[in-house]
Amino acid sequence: MTELAAVKAALKTQAVETPSWAYGNSGTRFKVFAQQGVPRTPQEKIEDAAKVHEFTGAAPTVALHIPWDRVDDYAALARHAEDHGVRLGTINSNTFQDDDYKLGSVCHPEASVRRKAVDHLLECVDVMDATGSRDLKLWFADGTNYPGQDDIRARQDRLAEALAEVYARLGDDQRMLLEYKFFEPAFYSTDVPDWGTAYAHCLKLGPKAQVVVDTGHHAPGTNIEFIVASLLREGKLGGFDFNSRFYADDDLMAGAADPFQLFRIMYEVVRGGGFTPEVAFMLDQCHNIEAKVPAIIRSVMNVQEATAKALLVDRDALAAAQAAGDVLAANGVLMDAYSTDVRPLLAEVRGELGLDPDPMASYRRSGWAEKIAGARVGGQQAGWGA
Amino acid sequence: MTELAAVKAALKTQAVETPSWAYGNSGTRFKVFAQQGVPRTPQEKIEDAAKVHEFTGAAPTVALHIPWDRVDDYAALARHAEDHGVRLGTINSNTFQDDDYKLGSVCHPEASVRRKAVDHLLECVDVMDATGSRDLKLWFADGTNYPGQDDIRARQDRLAEALAEVYARLGDDQRMLLEYKFFEPAFYSTDVPDWGTAYAHCLKLGPKAQVVVDTGHHAPGTNIEFIVASLLREGKLGGFDFNSRFYADDDLMAGAADPFQLFRIMYEVVRGGGFTPEVAFMLDQCHNIEAKVPAIIRSVMNVQEATAKALLVDRDALAAAQAAGDVLAANGVLMDAYSTDVRPLLAEVRGELGLDPDPMASYRRSGWAEKIAGARVGGQQAGWGA
Amino acid sequence: MTELAAVKAALKTQAVETPSWAYGNSGTRFKVFAQQGVPRTPQEKIEDAAKVHEFTGAAPTVALHIPWDRVDDYAALARHAEDHGVRLGTINSNTFQDDDYKLGSVCHPEASVRRKAVDHLLECVDVMDATGSRDLKLWFADGTNYPGQDDIRARQDRLAEALAEVYARLGDDQRMLLEYKFFEPAFYSTDVPDWGTAYAHCLKLGPKAQVVVDTGHHAPGTNIEFIVASLLREGKLGGFDFNSRFYADDDLMAGAADPFQLFRIMYEVVRGGGFTPEVAFMLDQCHNIEAKVPAIIRSVMNVQEATAKALLVDRDALAAAQAAGDVLAANGVLMDAYSTDVRPLLAEVRGELGLDPDPMASYRRSGWAEKIAGARVGGQQAGWGA
Amino acid sequence: MTELAAVKAALKTQAVETPSWAYGNSGTRFKVFAQQGVPRTPQEKIEDAAKVHEFTGAAPTVALHIPWDRVDDYAALARHAEDHGVRLGTINSNTFQDDDYKLGSVCHPEASVRRKAVDHLLECVDVMDATGSRDLKLWFADGTNYPGQDDIRARQDRLAEALAEVYARLGDDQRMLLEYKFFEPAFYSTDVPDWGTAYAHCLKLGPKAQVVVDTGHHAPGTNIEFIVASLLREGKLGGFDFNSRFYADDDLMAGAADPFQLFRIMYEVVRGGGFTPEVAFMLDQCHNIEAKVPAIIRSVMNVQEATAKALLVDRDALAAAQAAGDVLAANGVLMDAYSTDVRPLLAEVRGELGLDPDPMASYRRSGWAEKIAGARVGGQQAGWGA
Repeated sequence: MTELAAVKAALKTQAVETPSWAYGNSGTRFKVFAQQGVPRTPQEKIEDAAKVHEFTGAAPTVALHIPWDRVDDYAALARHAEDHGVRLGTINSNTFQDDDYKLGSVCHPEASVRRKAVDHLLECVDVMDATGSRDLKLWFADGTNYPGQDDIRARQDRLAEALAEVYARLGDDQRMLLEYKFFEPAFYSTDVPDWGTAYAHCLKLGPKAQVVVDTGHHAPGTNIEFIVASLLREGKLGGFDFNSRFYADDDLMAGAADPFQLFRIMYEVVRGGGFTPEVAFMLDQCHNIEAKVPAIIRSVMNVQEATAKALLVDRDALAAAQAAGDVLAANGVLMDAYSTDVRPLLAEVRGELGLDPDPMASYRRSGWAEKIAGARVGGQQAGWGA
Repeated sequence: MTELAAVKAALKTQAVETPSWAYGNSGTRFKVFAQQGVPRTPQEKIEDAAKVHEFTGAAPTVALHIPWDRVDDYAALARHAEDHGVRLGTINSNTFQDDDYKLGSVCHPEASVRRKAVDHLLECVDVMDATGSRDLKLWFADGTNYPGQDDIRARQDRLAEALAEVYARLGDDQRMLLEYKFFEPAFYSTDVPDWGTAYAHCLKLGPKAQVVVDTGHHAPGTNIEFIVASLLREGKLGGFDFNSRFYADDDLMAGAADPFQLFRIMYEVVRGGGFTPEVAFMLDQCHNIEAKVPAIIRSVMNVQEATAKALLVDRDALAAAQAAGDVLAANGVLMDAYSTDVRPLLAEVRGELGLDPDPMASYRRSGWAEKIAGARVGGQQAGWGA
Repeated sequence: MTELAAVKAALKTQAVETPSWAYGNSGTRFKVFAQQGVPRTPQEKIEDAAKVHEFTGAAPTVALHIPWDRVDDYAALARHAEDHGVRLGTINSNTFQDDDYKLGSVCHPEASVRRKAVDHLLECVDVMDATGSRDLKLWFADGTNYPGQDDIRARQDRLAEALAEVYARLGDDQRMLLEYKFFEPAFYSTDVPDWGTAYAHCLKLGPKAQVVVDTGHHAPGTNIEFIVASLLREGKLGGFDFNSRFYADDDLMAGAADPFQLFRIMYEVVRGGGFTPEVAFMLDQCHNIEAKVPAIIRSVMNVQEATAKALLVDRDALAAAQAAGDVLAANGVLMDAYSTDVRPLLAEVRGELGLDPDPMASYRRSGWAEKIAGARVGGQQAGWGA
Repeated sequence: MTELAAVKAALKTQAVETPSWAYGNSGTRFKVFAQQGVPRTPQEKIEDAAKVHEFTGAAPTVALHIPWDRVDDYAALARHAEDHGVRLGTINSNTFQDDDYKLGSVCHPEASVRRKAVDHLLECVDVMDATGSRDLKLWFADGTNYPGQDDIRARQDRLAEALAEVYARLGDDQRMLLEYKFFEPAFYSTDVPDWGTAYAHCLKLGPKAQVVVDTGHHAPGTNIEFIVASLLREGKLGGFDFNSRFYADDDLMAGAADPFQLFRIMYEVVRGGGFTPEVAFMLDQCHNIEAKVPAIIRSVMNVQEATAKALLVDRDALAAAQAAGDVLAANGVLMDAYSTDVRPLLAEVRGELGLDPDPMASYRRSGWAEKIAGARVGGQQAGWGA
């Protein structure tokens, strides 16, 4: 197989999971702008997700968020997904929207609130059993807003205890992905603020606990690809929540704010052996002002373009320049791949997969946007508010 | 008058305006945690604000937010305030919560939306006429989320046009305070992102247009006191929105995150001749998890403490050390004032004003929290969502 | 002329000034790593600059730094430049390396130090008269390290006075470019920290005073293209110091850290009518670990690539999508241009100019690096230390 | 013992190590401003350090930096220290100032350079044997400036290998303190950029490897006290390099930029059981423009004040408020301690130790500054340049 053939083969296997909640309404603390045609049920979210897969061929699974996607019959929901050509993916927990969680969930000073939170996490594993999901993604909004508000260290003890209980409940083929976040919604201390904290907890828990990197959850200036390389080296990278940001956790479309950074991240994934099913590629975004389905299509395409460029890096030439200490040549090899316009290559890949080479245009032509705008009237549009 | 007497006299004149919306519920995009006893009407907000003034003696006015505080009879609302011992203050506009404003208000690409936004601003001046308010505070959520989304420069032209129309409508004793903000809710470009932009617009508008500094609206690391000193030097500092932050626009209690910074800001205010009614001291905060009325009392006290320390700086000694180029001595003079525990001094000031020396304790003893929790049941608690 | 022909015509006119000091040694506070073949005289720096122009065709002028490039006979230096195919450009002042400047230069508390600094600036205008340079670029290291160290506002007064004296000395065709910088070498306050400060001073001085944007001199997260658009709108953008950064003022090669940002900046330049000789494109970089001449060639090429992409933006399509409020389409138009591989286009442009299409390779083949490494032995290599 | 007596007893035991290099000249990449009376030898640095201890009673040890403090006879140097009333402390390595280290030291692509760097580290352990020092402090300037320049992951492998060799050489009572730093002098990737990386390496090395927290080495907005609490919880906090910053690694006097942060850090130290000899308190600062000896005295005092306030926190009241979920009360307990003016308490402590209650004034009166300015003439002033 030629090198280009290998690149194309790799691209054909790429799968980016899309999140059910990104199809629903979202916004900032100032305003949620409702959009036409937004799903009202988990089923409708899955139908939208299926459209993303239909046009990209690269989004075969949908992540669920409990309780936003709570249904009576998960097996039926799984069948609904399969009927539409996709599968259910990662289960995301929610311990931040109940009134009890004002001061935290698994780190809350009161044992009863912690119990409630852990019970919810255990329920999520039950859902995983029903859906056949492999991964439980844990993001905790826990933290404090004011110095002194709570004991930073005691909260770590509580966190460790909760994680251990959930870890013990995992099945043999199930994993726990622990997400870290720099800040928000807590404004002074966050209980899992950085990769070091997530890593330290996962290390103690065991091999089924892995760190998930949300590309929007870092301090300004953080070199994310360094973290990716380090976690892969430690065997502790469980996956990504892709999105992009200019300032804080802006949750913009992946690749929209800093496409060069996304390329560098994907390069470390490829170089570190992370382009495997063990590293889950997921989106976690908010399409506050742009149309949701095409924004997600675009995001998947952005991830594909960054991946294509990463795969095109001439690694032999790079290694040679690095070994020679030739700074400009080594940087040049990387930039050659980045400067390449990979859209024709991806169009070709799509064609070979029997897809339209231009997912955005074909989605537009499909009439789906108009159809759902007309059909999804009445009921309660999905959103973050349960 | 001795120096200490002068400091006390100055402290007795200090007035910090509290914002009506800080008494209502607030939160993050993830969750608004409702609190007991939260006001349901502008009148109830004013009653809470009156309590803050009752216990601090330093919060004689309340800022209104239109439309959140829209009433049929503003004169009656003003009388309600006076009956409770306070007055109505600054009028704050809102051009970010209507569905039409998804892509902006006064900077929106469509003329009809801009018209609607400007009409709202003009309505706010009408309200000012009715309430006798001096200041119109303008904060625009306008901006874009994605590169290319709109034309950055054309948006400035639209902004200038809107401001000019509103400026022309101001009465002789009315002012326009233009607020800037680094980011949020827009995540790529913000139409008034920094003091330079606000200053340039105000300069063209004329003397009734002034810049307002929200202490939470800057890029990481920004030296805010430099901006304060510069605006005072230019005669363009109209006031402050005080709050504090560790990360972004966290809207924590003033002085809670970096009390040394608040002191340095107040020092520049004092040094630059800004401790006058021409510079409005206002709070703009969100008490997402802490009790609201005492949080605002505490914030007023924090501003008072920073002011007291700023007034205590030995400016002769400071000037001498600065002129001598004695870095350590000059820094030492400033730190001497900052290291001083001014709580006894402020307790004394309060005693001389006939107030309890400990506003937090006296508020707690007053039973107000219990009273409103019991009384304000039913109805719609106030919050950001209109 | 077809659109592509217009793009090529524009690219052929692009001129990027290179700084004499970038050919000399530089480093961090920890270490300056000397390189072989580094120039020892202003003449040798000019010879290196001439090589950059020889291979790129886009670097026809060299900026001088006084006193680093002080010579007895500037007319002779100008002839030396012309003999090598380039011209002398902007004159850069230096008021930060004399022992007297420990606490500042034009903002220093002592009048005698300020006098010395202003005299140096006036000397720089003398140099401009001799070299025929149009622009005086002013960057001040002035600031303070500790709160209280000096009076922030008094320093502004001193700055204004100094600038006014220098401004008065400018000839009819001469300009003053005032540079701002967020921090470094001052660590608490900087006397020209942001574009607002530079703008306010330039506005008072008059039309010959213009702001220069160094792309590395902003707070984290700053939207630089917004500043560019604003300054162009105000008629106050005098030029750029290009370089790139991941953290602070890293002074890396332009376009190396965030090529998408450089593209967005160049788009605002093009859109705002700034692609004219009135807006000076300059590099200001430090090649601490990479070979200097090829690093500068590469930087010029990076600016060219960003410019080419900016020129390729379909502005009609962009305006239509913006007017329609179609966020994804408008962003898509911009990204289409950015995703384009413009290297073939630039190779074509170079060919039409009689240049080798690959400046890096042709420089390597030229043997210049080996030649100067062999020839420039002995003497004092140029660097920042005078 | 009353609580206040316990606080005073604790304060009397506090020891802050001062760094030999802080007594020498330092600066930025733009300029090193030489000061009068700066030491020319390790012996003279120790004499200055002894003065800091003489006036504060809290700086009994001096850290050495190899090769800056390389001498033939370390035992003699230790005696010199003891003769002046202090002891030699931590040994700091230097793998950043040799020309060979342009592309790194222990992470360099070439094995020969790595060998040289490791040999230097082993030499430092030899020095420790001779001086009786317990701690080897490792800070690596290693990193890259450009994407692609070197392989991020391979550099981690090289780092691990080097650390393992040095760890194996440590004596039973010796420790290795691994320092992390966000950026500088490397501007794209740094090989030990954050606590997570340092922690992961130390964990694998074993109990004699501990993390050292330099308070200036974090991304903007990082909650340092969280890291302190976490490392103490993990048993992996080896010590501090105290200094303060507004922007990057400004190396200002500890407590000068954000005294509230220093207090919060010291509170976590106290709360986490870190106020023991196992956690080394060290300064690492640059006094670029202020007089060095008094700046270090001041820094020691600032650490003492933060510690005193931390010790004064009413931990029972705090725990009660935290358990009750009373955000304002809990924050209030912490702020009560912070608002306290502890200067009188520390003056008392000094008096009881037989010291002048005002170290700054007594140092000024001592005439030391004048004495060394007169005596230390000729020779080579100490500085970072070897």
